[in-house]
Amino acid sequence: MSRSLLLVGTGLIGGSFALAAKSHGLFERVFGMDRNPQALAAALELGVIDAAAESMAGDYDAVCIAIPVGGIAASVRKAAQSAPLVFDVGSVKSPIIAALKPLPGNFVPCHPIAGSEQQGPAAARAELFAGHTVVLTPTPATDPAAVATARGYWEAVGGRVVVETAADHDERFALLSHLPHLVAFAFMDVAARAGSPGGAGAGFRDFTRIAAADAEVWADILHANAPRVRRHVDELIDNLRAFAVAAERGGPVLRERIEAAARIKHALDGSRGGTSH
Amino acid sequence: MSRSLLLVGTGLIGGSFALAAKSHGLFERVFGMDRNPQALAAALELGVIDAAAESMAGDYDAVCIAIPVGGIAASVRKAAQSAPLVFDVGSVKSPIIAALKPLPGNFVPCHPIAGSEQQGPAAARAELFAGHTVVLTPTPATDPAAVATARGYWEAVGGRVVVETAADHDERFALLSHLPHLVAFAFMDVAARAGSPGGAGAGFRDFTRIAAADAEVWADILHANAPRVRRHVDELIDNLRAFAVAAERGGPVLRERIEAAARIKHALDGSRGGTSH
Repeated sequence: MSRSLLLVGTGLIGGSFALAAKSHGLFERVFGMDRNPQALAAALELGVIDAAAESMAGDYDAVCIAIPVGGIAASVRKAAQSAPLVFDVGSVKSPIIAALKPLPGNFVPCHPIAGSEQQGPAAARAELFAGHTVVLTPTPATDPAAVATARGYWEAVGGRVVVETAADHDERFALLSHLPHLVAFAFMDVAARAGSPGGAGAGFRDFTRIAAADAEVWADILHANAPRVRRHVDELIDNLRAFAVAAERGGPVLRERIEAAARIKHALDGSRGGTSH
Repeated sequence: MSRSLLLVGTGLIGGSFALAAKSHGLFERVFGMDRNPQALAAALELGVIDAAAESMAGDYDAVCIAIPVGGIAASVRKAAQSAPLVFDVGSVKSPIIAALKPLPGNFVPCHPIAGSEQQGPAAARAELFAGHTVVLTPTPATDPAAVATARGYWEAVGGRVVVETAADHDERFALLSHLPHLVAFAFMDVAARAGSPGGAGAGFRDFTRIAAADAEVWADILHANAPRVRRHVDELIDNLRAFAVAAERGGPVLRERIEAAARIKHALDGSRGGTSH
């Protein structure tokens, strides 16, 4: 019997996993579901999936849930009843696990750190995960064999697997990803007051790149991790005020604060793994 | 008699102008000054300048002041006494003009929108300004012939010259450049709490790239434009709070706010000139 994957959500991340998994021989057939009929049709036409699936009940070896965070728990609950292995790609992990009680042992919570502001099956590519970190956050209820299989999938497509608790994951990504996105979104409204953007430079373009992220995906992420993000927003506001005061005063204190920021930036760049793309 | 340029400050921007000006035949000889002896030696060795100058008093056709904003007015005052044309490359214009009373007619305030987080004469390259906006902010006191000559220099090295008032310039760059830098600096201190940065993605790297900017240059810029930047910091803080509340509530309001941010981002990207590098 041929090995088969059911992909729920045919966007950039799920579509890229399907392409990568096929190209590395993990599955012979990939079936797909998408509540957006245009995306499903595009995924079929582009060869991201081999066939459309009618429901999650089927003889699949694994189910990959690649939809916005808000819908993941409900999809996992359904898929875990029939497939031997279910994994997701959501950017927040604790709320999904908390919503699944009892937690299915065959569900492995995953978060591949890859992507871009591009969206949809047309943006999917088999190399998306090559060299990128993939965080797995199993719980004591998770079947170790399921974790090993999921780890094997991610390593096969080029990912560098890291295992940690969902709480540690969500705390770190609140700082390193969710807060920057919220700041970039909030900043755009202020930047719009510039009227003409003539002469905005490369710094502006890079700083605001994440503001073009998918609204539904990010609304779900920010809502799911809101308490942690909120705490860091408050910390950032305190820092912004202190920086504005230092800017007014000028002198060595301001320069030292900027030097400290540059040191942290270099330290984080230097020790970061799997982010060269 | 050979045409000659005096470059005051041999860093990335000044050094790149010197290289570009030489390669486009604007000057036959470039003399350089730098209060940092290592930078001056490197500029000589790398061919960024042809010779070191002892003082600003000399038979130069033009003087380019390419030092941090805080020192520009004093250097312009000296240089304008002997050279027929003086121009600077500072990122803030009004405070420089305000500090020069009476304003020398042969001084043309300039701001090329180019650069990177790389620093020093070793980072200088002749193509830095190609396709980039260069803002000129002459006042009624500025000699139109001096403006025409400066414009010719910048156009010769590939810049797209825009003329506007210093106040308009400083207001726009407070929003599009100085505020993002201040935010990136302030954010790094919060990000440092993540401890391990493992798995920070491309979004994080781009968002924080400007945090590695030169501390002395940016301390001067933020201090010089502090009142305008402060106002926008306060606006951003209001927006951050509103976004954090929207994140807690979730739902369509949050999604619409993120969609609006993405729309502004796309609009600014689409209408922006001279920023493809």
